[in-house]
Amino acid sequence: MTAPLDHQTLEQNFVKPNILKQERTKAGRRLKLIQEELRKRFLKLKEESGSHSPSTSTILESIPELTIDVDACFLSNPLATDLFLEFLREELLETGKLRDVLEFYPAQNVEISKHLSPYLDVPKDMVFIGNGAVEIIQAFLHNFTEKSILINIPTFSSYYEFVRPDTRTIFHQLDKSKDFRLDQKDFVDVVKKEKPDTVVLINPNNPDGGYLTIDKLSSLISELKSVKNIVVDESFIHFAYEDDSLDLHSLAPLTKKFENLTIIKSMSKDFGIAGIRAGYAVMHPTKVTKLLKNGYLWNSSGLAEYFFKLYAREDFLKRYEKVRRKYIRDTQFFFAELLEIPNIKIYPSKANFALIEILNGRTATNLVMDLLFNHGIYVRTCSDKIGLEKGEFIRLASRSEKENRKTASALKQCLL
Amino acid sequence: MTAPLDHQTLEQNFVKPNILKQERTKAGRRLKLIQEELRKRFLKLKEESGSHSPSTSTILESIPELTIDVDACFLSNPLATDLFLEFLREELLETGKLRDVLEFYPAQNVEISKHLSPYLDVPKDMVFIGNGAVEIIQAFLHNFTEKSILINIPTFSSYYEFVRPDTRTIFHQLDKSKDFRLDQKDFVDVVKKEKPDTVVLINPNNPDGGYLTIDKLSSLISELKSVKNIVVDESFIHFAYEDDSLDLHSLAPLTKKFENLTIIKSMSKDFGIAGIRAGYAVMHPTKVTKLLKNGYLWNSSGLAEYFFKLYAREDFLKRYEKVRRKYIRDTQFFFAELLEIPNIKIYPSKANFALIEILNGRTATNLVMDLLFNHGIYVRTCSDKIGLEKGEFIRLASRSEKENRKTASALKQCLL
Repeated sequence: MTAPLDHQTLEQNFVKPNILKQERTKAGRRLKLIQEELRKRFLKLKEESGSHSPSTSTILESIPELTIDVDACFLSNPLATDLFLEFLREELLETGKLRDVLEFYPAQNVEISKHLSPYLDVPKDMVFIGNGAVEIIQAFLHNFTEKSILINIPTFSSYYEFVRPDTRTIFHQLDKSKDFRLDQKDFVDVVKKEKPDTVVLINPNNPDGGYLTIDKLSSLISELKSVKNIVVDESFIHFAYEDDSLDLHSLAPLTKKFENLTIIKSMSKDFGIAGIRAGYAVMHPTKVTKLLKNGYLWNSSGLAEYFFKLYAREDFLKRYEKVRRKYIRDTQFFFAELLEIPNIKIYPSKANFALIEILNGRTATNLVMDLLFNHGIYVRTCSDKIGLEKGEFIRLASRSEKENRKTASALKQCLL
Repeated sequence: MTAPLDHQTLEQNFVKPNILKQERTKAGRRLKLIQEELRKRFLKLKEESGSHSPSTSTILESIPELTIDVDACFLSNPLATDLFLEFLREELLETGKLRDVLEFYPAQNVEISKHLSPYLDVPKDMVFIGNGAVEIIQAFLHNFTEKSILINIPTFSSYYEFVRPDTRTIFHQLDKSKDFRLDQKDFVDVVKKEKPDTVVLINPNNPDGGYLTIDKLSSLISELKSVKNIVVDESFIHFAYEDDSLDLHSLAPLTKKFENLTIIKSMSKDFGIAGIRAGYAVMHPTKVTKLLKNGYLWNSSGLAEYFFKLYAREDFLKRYEKVRRKYIRDTQFFFAELLEIPNIKIYPSKANFALIEILNGRTATNLVMDLLFNHGIYVRTCSDKIGLEKGEFIRLASRSEKENRKTASALKQCLL
């Protein structure tokens, strides 16, 4: 376990074996004061970040005394980052081509989307490239959603935060006693009753990792023909699997059959490149055309363009497929370890994170700060998530094998 | 001068001295056919790119037979690219920090804007960060412009292309006989008559480079108090100067005085980093808040964040100031060379490009293809620009000293 605080005096006072009891009490009081101060600063920072967690760099800038060893808030495959960096180094850094990527204008949206079209098995005029999935979510909500949107909760907050002021948000609470699994009949009933023009389905769902098989989801979509827009967010789909083959099942090709279906996907999670800002949507060509008429022509950076070209290359994908499968296995092993820890409930997840309910009366914020200040592990409190009011929840990301071991061990110590 | 066509057979047939006349005629005919074919492909490509020129990489992908030596379409300071790459190499590549920049989420919009606030001399809640200026233009037009917008023409097309369908665009034609200079009285008269809720002023203007001094522009703005939104686009302001000191004069601090004033600025041109997608706006805090409520939280990439932090650093700015001044001197020297070429008129420019009118009856497209196919120099035809119908125009960017010499010499050969 690493030093929780980079505070030299504290450290010295605390670990010296020959320190007098009185001194130790003094030091203890000072430690308490410092920790109280840190807590205040951390809570203020969280408040300022709204419904999203402050990033590790933002935390470290504001509280430089902290050391963060594991960012278990961060939902991304680190093995995929390694792989991307390997290609980048060889193809852009060592050749000097990085200059071109940074200096010149990247290709326009339609030029990039045509690279993705064969891989996604849809025509190129159905692909829209985004500066991260969030840009597409916003564009969708502002251009296609009209009177009302139906969203399962708990969920990724951007889907209700960025709606237009004239759009009514209808929340459909997923049942905690059923592990937040979506019940098809319940959902269709709500749709019939509320008649939303847009419904959102995140698969696997964030923050619980609940997954609907491609068959179940297809069946649900075929029941929603009367709905103007169905958004399926597949940002975590690369971590899901339906059997031991660990094969990937995307709904993207179904957009050719259902005109009301839109797939939105972030590339930050599965490819470990959140800093590049890359996402895409597959939707009806009239929707793509409408968005392009409103702007979004040059919304990709040169590095995003390079990434999207890689994403369509067989040599890269072959290597990627290996790290995707390895990461799924590591993640499932991590989840199994977490199941051994007392006083918590791990919700079943097919994503690269687990929603954890604290059962021993501690608050989520208290546990998050314990893990951060005393173990250098940063996890996300879910106490601010709409739909998670009944209970204390944190969300834990799977990182590298080594980091996962650290996280599991620290969590165990906090909860024993 | 480099080989215009990478076509081996052609080359061989054409240069062999012992070739028979008959053969030569055949080869000539074939060359003509091939050039005709290239012309067709180039024109098709241009058509597909809409009102913007296809990028060099798009051209080279579609017409791989071509060699482009000078991209004089591309409006950016190459010396600033060198400088940025020097910092990037030392601080991100050699330290291995590039990984963090690519792997993790960049800071949110408000976190980045606070770095810029001291440099721009405005409070941080007045700064909005964009994924390139185009994103901000689109956001502005969709969120703040209502019934009508007044735009001088010729201009940068995004200001009228991305307006909402319910916004009326009023074009104010700049007078060619007055070198497209904006006449303050004329402009105020049009505003009084048309009562637009938004007016746009690009300074220096694109595509002619016409510049209004800070005093003149301030005086104009003070006459436009009744207009809801005044947008001043300062994307080329780093290339403008008012006297031999070559000092930079930005209108940004005036946003504190005039609530209706918004400054929009691309960083692609002056800093030579179009591939990074970085721009900002300075506007009233209520406008910034409204945009952030609609999304735009994570619209910067990790590299854009790195750049913006550099932009606020004294050590970087000190070095940048030198390359800015050197580039202005190179550019003015280039313009002076162009003035020596017959059969064209160079419009007075304080930007890093010159608008050129062709006076010998050749069309702009014809000259552009001549420069591209026979000299490897890519320039922008302005025949598609609204407001430039009366005449044949091209726009020429200033590049490195060496490239500028090549461009001037090729243009001379084409026009003699």
